Amino acid sequence: MNFLEEKILSDGIVKEGNILKVDSFLNHQIDIELMRQIGQEFQRRFEGERITKILTIEASGIAIASVAAMYFNVPVLFAKKTQSVNVDGDKYSAEAFSFTHKCTNKVFVSKKYLSPDDRVLIIDDFLALGSALIALTDIVEQAGATIVGIGIAVEKGFQDGGDIMRKKGYRLESIAIVDQMDAASGTVKFREQ
Amino acid sequence: MNFLEEKILSDGIVKEGNILKVDSFLNHQIDIELMRQIGQEFQRRFEGERITKILTIEASGIAIASVAAMYFNVPVLFAKKTQSVNVDGDKYSAEAFSFTHKCTNKVFVSKKYLSPDDRVLIIDDFLALGSALIALTDIVEQAGATIVGIGIAVEKGFQDGGDIMRKKGYRLESIAIVDQMDAASGTVKFREQ
Repeated sequence: MNFLEEKILSDGIVKEGNILKVDSFLNHQIDIELMRQIGQEFQRRFEGERITKILTIEASGIAIASVAAMYFNVPVLFAKKTQSVNVDGDKYSAEAFSFTHKCTNKVFVSKKYLSPDDRVLIIDDFLALGSALIALTDIVEQAGATIVGIGIAVEKGFQDGGDIMRKKGYRLESIAIVDQMDAASGTVKFREQ
Repeated sequence: MNFLEEKILSDGIVKEGNILKVDSFLNHQIDIELMRQIGQEFQRRFEGERITKILTIEASGIAIASVAAMYFNVPVLFAKKTQSVNVDGDKYSAEAFSFTHKCTNKVFVSKKYLSPDDRVLIIDDFLALGSALIALTDIVEQAGATIVGIGIAVEKGFQDGGDIMRKKGYRLESIAIVDQMDAASGTVKFREQ
């Protein structure tokens, strides 16, 4: 079992409705030592890939992406969910359905910050139905940049997002893949990797 | 002139309506080496304060807070702007008007992650009218925790937020304070610190 699987077993909470609560260390309170380990693990898995930029989506992806970026020494770019005076000018946009918030968001990236020369690593904390990743990969492709791979902390393997991304041919690296969860017993079963 | 003031002069853009665009390095694309410098500067300024937790607000505060937390070796907690299945149970909440998005948000923090024993450093990327900070300080006080100080990357010194916070007695450390901006000439004048 790896460090993230151990953390999920010790501090994650399984709730009815296939909800895995990791808000004590991943998406509300953030365990910084765990972020370091996740960053180092992505660096190990994507070593030699000449990544030029890390792309994520607000909000909880920003913590993982920022700490990982310290190991890759590249800028982070985060897609925004709202139009803002902070990001004007030409933008790439794509639609993403949020499983967490039960609504569709349009997400934006300024055209200035992605170019065909970029080799992009997409990072996010969670992968379930994959709609955030579909939006992010769409945006990178609109820019004509290269998607080197996708780094995910926790993938819900019993939902479709991972399969969709792998079938599209992306190199998807999830540090922990949850294949089964049971709220009654609180058990979590991970995929062998 | 310090490293952040130099960065603002070289890469920031002044626009009509007192808008300082720093989306190339601070709140859309994130310059990781700059984040390191900001994190180290907060560590220097708040050394010996026995900080137990860093509190910020989604979204762009998360990058600075996460990198800074690597220097303090404490968890980051970020206030959320939407109700979410990820954060259930009892919450502290407060209202924040967003200057950027021109609307009032209710922001939330789970009660589990702030206790009276906590010594909290509040970190954010921008300070203008101060409404995010008013909400965050309100939440820490609801929890009975101690506010050690507030670390800001860029303060707009010609708006009221900084004065409000200093008059309330908080130790506010802004790495760059912009006292004047002129869109026509593109000039920025910083407060001597």
